[in-house]
Amino acid sequence: MLTVFSNDQLLHEGKSEFHRGQLLPCFESPKRAELILAELQANKSGDIIAPDRFGLEPVLRIHDAAYVEFLQTAFDRWHTIHPDCDALPHTWNMRGARDILPNNIYGQLGYYSCDASTPIMAHTWQAAKASADAAIMAQRLVMQGHRSAFALTRPPGHHATSNVYGGYCYLNNAAIAAQAFLDGDAKQVAILDIDYHHGNGTQIIFEDRNDVLVVSIHANPAEAYPYFLGYADETGTGAGKGYNLNLPLPDGTDWNSYQGALETALAAISRFTPDYLVVSLGVDTYAGDPISSFKLSSNDFSKLGHHLGKADFPTLILMEGGYAVDNIGCNVVKVLTGFEDAI
Amino acid sequence: MLTVFSNDQLLHEGKSEFHRGQLLPCFESPKRAELILAELQANKSGDIIAPDRFGLEPVLRIHDAAYVEFLQTAFDRWHTIHPDCDALPHTWNMRGARDILPNNIYGQLGYYSCDASTPIMAHTWQAAKASADAAIMAQRLVMQGHRSAFALTRPPGHHATSNVYGGYCYLNNAAIAAQAFLDGDAKQVAILDIDYHHGNGTQIIFEDRNDVLVVSIHANPAEAYPYFLGYADETGTGAGKGYNLNLPLPDGTDWNSYQGALETALAAISRFTPDYLVVSLGVDTYAGDPISSFKLSSNDFSKLGHHLGKADFPTLILMEGGYAVDNIGCNVVKVLTGFEDAI
Repeated sequence: MLTVFSNDQLLHEGKSEFHRGQLLPCFESPKRAELILAELQANKSGDIIAPDRFGLEPVLRIHDAAYVEFLQTAFDRWHTIHPDCDALPHTWNMRGARDILPNNIYGQLGYYSCDASTPIMAHTWQAAKASADAAIMAQRLVMQGHRSAFALTRPPGHHATSNVYGGYCYLNNAAIAAQAFLDGDAKQVAILDIDYHHGNGTQIIFEDRNDVLVVSIHANPAEAYPYFLGYADETGTGAGKGYNLNLPLPDGTDWNSYQGALETALAAISRFTPDYLVVSLGVDTYAGDPISSFKLSSNDFSKLGHHLGKADFPTLILMEGGYAVDNIGCNVVKVLTGFEDAI
Repeated sequence: MLTVFSNDQLLHEGKSEFHRGQLLPCFESPKRAELILAELQANKSGDIIAPDRFGLEPVLRIHDAAYVEFLQTAFDRWHTIHPDCDALPHTWNMRGARDILPNNIYGQLGYYSCDASTPIMAHTWQAAKASADAAIMAQRLVMQGHRSAFALTRPPGHHATSNVYGGYCYLNNAAIAAQAFLDGDAKQVAILDIDYHHGNGTQIIFEDRNDVLVVSIHANPAEAYPYFLGYADETGTGAGKGYNLNLPLPDGTDWNSYQGALETALAAISRFTPDYLVVSLGVDTYAGDPISSFKLSSNDFSKLGHHLGKADFPTLILMEGGYAVDNIGCNVVKVLTGFEDAI
């Protein structure tokens, strides 16, 4: 499968994230992408090309202009006060407070974020934009007739909303790509999110729309990040009612249970008859992941890829999470190979 | 002036707070209370008595039962996973997510908090409850005829709402005391908040009520914590319309500017004709405060106390912030002495 990736995506390298009471080295590191690239090359998985630069227009179809400007400027504002550490929020809107944007950088960090685990450093914007460009480039290729393409989107995107970053995500690559299909020749697009964590950003962006079906298989949010969205009773709002499907699964889920949810998800997508399928791929469902609790084996990722291929849609696969770096490349390649073997 | 204080209030001693990208030693420390006590004793400011234990009833008049149970149990739940650090939240509800309480401790910490600067450790609940007891004890004494009393409430309270902690606050001592006056013989009570930071918790608790006038003089929230409330256009909601007065002041405010706001505040309170006045006293308006930007001198605190005394209401003074520990005792004593000299 053809892969799209830009070296600019490696420029984001946070020093630390605040997680479970401690400042820890960032789980989401450039090494993740490097190891996936190395494994793709070792397996001769297909060409790896750099994306074109697409400007801001496709990004602004999903994200608020003020939010994008914040992402572009936040680090410089922070750096003049704090030259020695990355920007992380420490306070946020409480229930009962106003939805108001303060001037102050600490207030703005809290306003635009949903966790303290997602640092903004010198090149975060460049890397996030390059990651979105990779998604758009791969989307263009699929729209031009490629049966599939893989955008090695890193930083990932599915936790970002139109104006909130978090969960290591700044720009919602899957949402940007889905909108780009609709702005092209598509009438309707399905997004299948198979990251361990619910794609809360993607859901929020599309929950009131019926041209994008969002289906997510993920850990029960009552027990796992992002905690405040991703429950089974969230089926969309307004015109989007019935166009959101959440399939939360319990701690310790293995392939036997996962496969059933995947079949349910793909059946719902088939009924929707999308023109294109966007897959938000996380391999943090792997048994060895350091911050997750599912029990998929490397071989299970081949089966997963096989199911995705058999679904028989023009498919854009985007990278989301996966933090067991020793196995991340192998697991991603197994998904892509499983996909290609099925078509 | 009589002071109420319990040694149990010293039991809360957080190891660190997450603030501006770093884990720092807690600004809000037991030493603050110890230094105030020492200065009160050195100045023979009056008796210092321990509060009775008042049970949960007055607390539950302000705070949700589920929130109180969370505060009572959160540390034990955290400690079994993380024996080496205090509980601090790292993620929270984003715009567009649900107002839903997850089961998971990390999710619950985010649900019930508004910053990562407010640790929960082994004895946080005991200390917060003892601090509320001090407020209630002092409230009882004023209701019984004392012209004034000082509750050395630490941990402070004014950032806490019915179900949110933050800003070093867990239980809203001022709100609990104001409600206790109303549950006693009062028809209406005024709260004057003169901490550097807006008393967002107090405002949220009473913003739809007309039996409690909340007046706050504080740093402009567009530039200073708590960022998302405390603007001049917030005048109350529903039945409480007209019963909230915010007087935000710019960075660098000195006594000349502060005095005008204080006179405006006290004039509004006089028009309200409260049966009792509750003062949320912060001395973080002091020029030497490490996390604030106002420029009051120690002598200005005498004048401030004088204004409060001249206002001529039965007055309960409660402690909120103030982090310039070398001067905190002196500045508090100057307020209390200024008050007593005026009556």
